[in-house]
Amino acid sequence: MAPSDNSETRMNASDRLPSDLTDRLKRQIEFILEVDRLKEVYRQSYVLPADRRENSAEHSWHLAITALLLPEHANHPIDTSHVIRMALVHDLVEIDAGDTFIYDPVGNLEKAAKEEKAADRIFGLLPPDQRDEWRALWQEFERRETAEAKFANALDRLLPVLHNYFTNGRSWKEHGITREQALMKNAVIGEGSETIWYLVETLIRDALGTPRSPGSPATPAAPGTEVKR
Amino acid sequence: MAPSDNSETRMNASDRLPSDLTDRLKRQIEFILEVDRLKEVYRQSYVLPADRRENSAEHSWHLAITALLLPEHANHPIDTSHVIRMALVHDLVEIDAGDTFIYDPVGNLEKAAKEEKAADRIFGLLPPDQRDEWRALWQEFERRETAEAKFANALDRLLPVLHNYFTNGRSWKEHGITREQALMKNAVIGEGSETIWYLVETLIRDALGTPRSPGSPATPAAPGTEVKR
Repeated sequence: MAPSDNSETRMNASDRLPSDLTDRLKRQIEFILEVDRLKEVYRQSYVLPADRRENSAEHSWHLAITALLLPEHANHPIDTSHVIRMALVHDLVEIDAGDTFIYDPVGNLEKAAKEEKAADRIFGLLPPDQRDEWRALWQEFERRETAEAKFANALDRLLPVLHNYFTNGRSWKEHGITREQALMKNAVIGEGSETIWYLVETLIRDALGTPRSPGSPATPAAPGTEVKR
Repeated sequence: MAPSDNSETRMNASDRLPSDLTDRLKRQIEFILEVDRLKEVYRQSYVLPADRRENSAEHSWHLAITALLLPEHANHPIDTSHVIRMALVHDLVEIDAGDTFIYDPVGNLEKAAKEEKAADRIFGLLPPDQRDEWRALWQEFERRETAEAKFANALDRLLPVLHNYFTNGRSWKEHGITREQALMKNAVIGEGSETIWYLVETLIRDALGTPRSPGSPATPAAPGTEVKR
């Protein structure tokens, strides 16, 4: 949180809205104001056009637009609009729980409990029908069981790999991430898209590995390079 | 654009991708890298949780999530997923054309031509089928003719009003925006949602107007306060 902010002016927003609005619309407007806070949750990735870390709101946009762009590369037919909705809400819990770096072993032990509590509060701000619907979207993303959730998670891991690869591995270097760690943490991409896993695996080996001779057992298999529909 | 950035490392990204990827996937990955630049296009609005301006990428996320939240308030039944897609792409042209403040008369004269040129280049990075589809989404938003485009535009104007209202009119004050200017520029909200226009009109009159006695002719009409489906 920045030392100087505008949040005080937002206190008791509902009291400042027209008194004859429905309670439902007041809650929805309160929610729109509340989620503005995701713009000040910072991730480990660096954006490409500036010397600064990425925040989780702009990342969520990037993930949604990537979902709109790449559905043909999913392993199975998917409902693209559903993937986009998951992308939009997948990081809202970070408003309370913060961003957990995927390579942080301690942080990841506590992540689930912290995020459940955050989900209670944040989705609880919504009218009950929307609370249940939005929380279900978030849980679906986290559980990674449906084809849509597997694909959304694959894209969510693709983006930081691209950010790292095209900033000379900046965030990986800062945290001393090894090739083995990066391969292990990203292998789940293959559950959503073999094509994207082939790309990611190749980029990780190139950025964090030592040059290998062709045909070495560590070489990623070449399938998945054709566009899948 | 910030003085120090990571963009040099992204030059010729395609040459650094695995050579056996399809050309189509290479173009799509290039596009994902290119649109990262929207994270460094700054708007006149201030975010609520920090003392900084909002960028167009995080704004696009906020717009998309607002579209997911408020479809019941549209004047006519709409395809929410389509509104969300428009929200995701509506500002991409700003990567080249920059953000044009809606109260800037000179900027708005040049806006259309600058944005058409930007659309040629940016959507032109996509494979042809996606180029046409994404450009059509952007044009639909700009033309404001369909029910979805009218509603997307209404929400796009709601957000800066909320940001202004809950930062004590900060951006309006910096630019000396009057009540009449704000009412005139935002009246199109009513084409997409009378409910949201009632809210916005009331907030503008409260923030930029002088206190009025009840029943004065300037008081906004009270309908539209009930939730419409």
